[in-house]
Amino acid sequence: MSAPPDPNTDTLVVVKPSPLNAETPTPALAAEVTPSRHVYVRSNFAHPQLDDGAHRIAVGGAVHSPFAIDMSELRALPMHTVVATMECAGNDRSSMRPPPPGELWRSGAVSTARWTGVPLAAVLERAGVHTEAVEILVEGADAGPREDSVGPVTFGRALPVADALQPDTLLAMMMNGEPLARPHGAPVRLIVPGWYGMASVKWVTRIEALTTPYRGYFQRKRYVYEDASATSPVTRMRVKSMIVSPEDGDVVASAPLLVQGWAWSGAAPIVRVEVAIGGGDTWRDAQLGAAASTHAWTPWELQCDVPQPGRYALRSRATDGAGNVQPDAARWNRHGYGNNAVRTVIIDVR
Amino acid sequence: MSAPPDPNTDTLVVVKPSPLNAETPTPALAAEVTPSRHVYVRSNFAHPQLDDGAHRIAVGGAVHSPFAIDMSELRALPMHTVVATMECAGNDRSSMRPPPPGELWRSGAVSTARWTGVPLAAVLERAGVHTEAVEILVEGADAGPREDSVGPVTFGRALPVADALQPDTLLAMMMNGEPLARPHGAPVRLIVPGWYGMASVKWVTRIEALTTPYRGYFQRKRYVYEDASATSPVTRMRVKSMIVSPEDGDVVASAPLLVQGWAWSGAAPIVRVEVAIGGGDTWRDAQLGAAASTHAWTPWELQCDVPQPGRYALRSRATDGAGNVQPDAARWNRHGYGNNAVRTVIIDVR
Repeated sequence: MSAPPDPNTDTLVVVKPSPLNAETPTPALAAEVTPSRHVYVRSNFAHPQLDDGAHRIAVGGAVHSPFAIDMSELRALPMHTVVATMECAGNDRSSMRPPPPGELWRSGAVSTARWTGVPLAAVLERAGVHTEAVEILVEGADAGPREDSVGPVTFGRALPVADALQPDTLLAMMMNGEPLARPHGAPVRLIVPGWYGMASVKWVTRIEALTTPYRGYFQRKRYVYEDASATSPVTRMRVKSMIVSPEDGDVVASAPLLVQGWAWSGAAPIVRVEVAIGGGDTWRDAQLGAAASTHAWTPWELQCDVPQPGRYALRSRATDGAGNVQPDAARWNRHGYGNNAVRTVIIDVR
Repeated sequence: MSAPPDPNTDTLVVVKPSPLNAETPTPALAAEVTPSRHVYVRSNFAHPQLDDGAHRIAVGGAVHSPFAIDMSELRALPMHTVVATMECAGNDRSSMRPPPPGELWRSGAVSTARWTGVPLAAVLERAGVHTEAVEILVEGADAGPREDSVGPVTFGRALPVADALQPDTLLAMMMNGEPLARPHGAPVRLIVPGWYGMASVKWVTRIEALTTPYRGYFQRKRYVYEDASATSPVTRMRVKSMIVSPEDGDVVASAPLLVQGWAWSGAAPIVRVEVAIGGGDTWRDAQLGAAASTHAWTPWELQCDVPQPGRYALRSRATDGAGNVQPDAARWNRHGYGNNAVRTVIIDVR
């Protein structure tokens, strides 16, 4: 099976051409599983070109039996498929004020795909992780200089051991039934369902069990919530909803209006989505549909009557089973991560 | 001279059709004096149709000589023309989060026009305002029911006596050299330069000198900054700037970029406009042009180099001679007035 063509500017909304950072186009966000050519691409560095036949992942650190595994060995292990929604930690950064540095994603740095691969746990079990290990570091082949770091930086993120061993945490080799395209991490990437995208390290080269918390650049200097009082790493996706239809700026008839969208949370299943029309604090419960998996976004919809012609704000607000609710306004932080504020779209009713 | 045709949906962006609330279209905001057909319209009630031949303004209250004046007498008094920028207090409400109730204006509820009329002071001097008067109430012919008031409400606003006597405060009968159109207050409206638009009462019927502060609906229940801790009336326009070019969402070449816009303040002249490209806190001074009058917006521009292709946030921040600076983020209040947050537009550089 050959890899599909790389995503390009016909199928994505480019935020930065080099390295490629590009959003899922709004119409493609209506699909429960995002077509591969429309899956958003987030890159910190130029895309490594890895030779599938020669590529090996080194597994080491605080393990009993360090080893290296090549792609054919990896493909021979039992495979598992999960449908997972993945959101970039910087999604919706463009609506934070003042705008933080970093890619100015609108609302399209989120996609849902079917990921197929070998559970990371299978590889870790073969190595035998020492009981004193606290985190599993996964490194990619992508690296380069950063203004605020001395020498080149390699992309890497560490997960608590329990999350690394979670059976749906995959060394994925396929997306939507096709081999990974290079921008998505070919030949193999990590997939950590429920976490913001930075955890799903692409172009995996190295897996290392650590006995002290990882202090790498992308764990301590980026992908951290940083404000005047504290810094903490970005981890699971905050509870969030998006309105897919109508779209911001739409002109619609005054007939009953069907509002539709998605909701997701990395903490717990979605248990409620409310919709408000107009200002004020009147919210109505939307009807929830069934998610494609426990890691995929939940569809919701609500049919509303609009009283009279004019401009209206539509808002959606999700609640998850852990009691997390979307905030009214973005919680600003220095690098602009985790904007899960209530989604507002403005429409004109004729 | 006959009045021009009413503004309509071809020349304005309608926010609510009835009563008409409609914005100046973005391209028309590039003009120093807004063409009449593109001047924004804010209405609280249906537009009164007044008979020019029979219309009289009653002048009374705490004055020595109450009188009524008809349009021909008013037109016989010495006329004065001022160019003034007028902004609706609810302009940019749509970008406040959560969206407050009220018309969801984007950035087009601001216009600049040449207003011609009789200074209010001339009429007040003829009446002889008592020294104990503290405010001058001006009422319009527009009235109607309001959900949160018993019985019909008439539109009225009061000004401190000093502002009422200010020589550029006009009983205006012409806009841009033509008789006022009905949606703009024909045959006569107040113009209070420097104040948000609600002070410029349309369809004037009554002028009354008050010895105690006015407590009417539009002075105490609306056009007030209200939050959890306090309520205070909306008065002068807060310092503000807008970027006219490029527009939000524009795709531009990576050549030098000319950023242009307007800045205004009801408190003092504009003394500085700064522009930031990208996140962070690097601001550069824009070049200020000459305003058409002390009450008109000040043009500004800055030529910038854009380092590389990608998506950028452009921000403008104005400072006035009283030291007021635009805040980074909107100051939320219950009815959504006075949003003078730093203006941000997002562009894609190819």
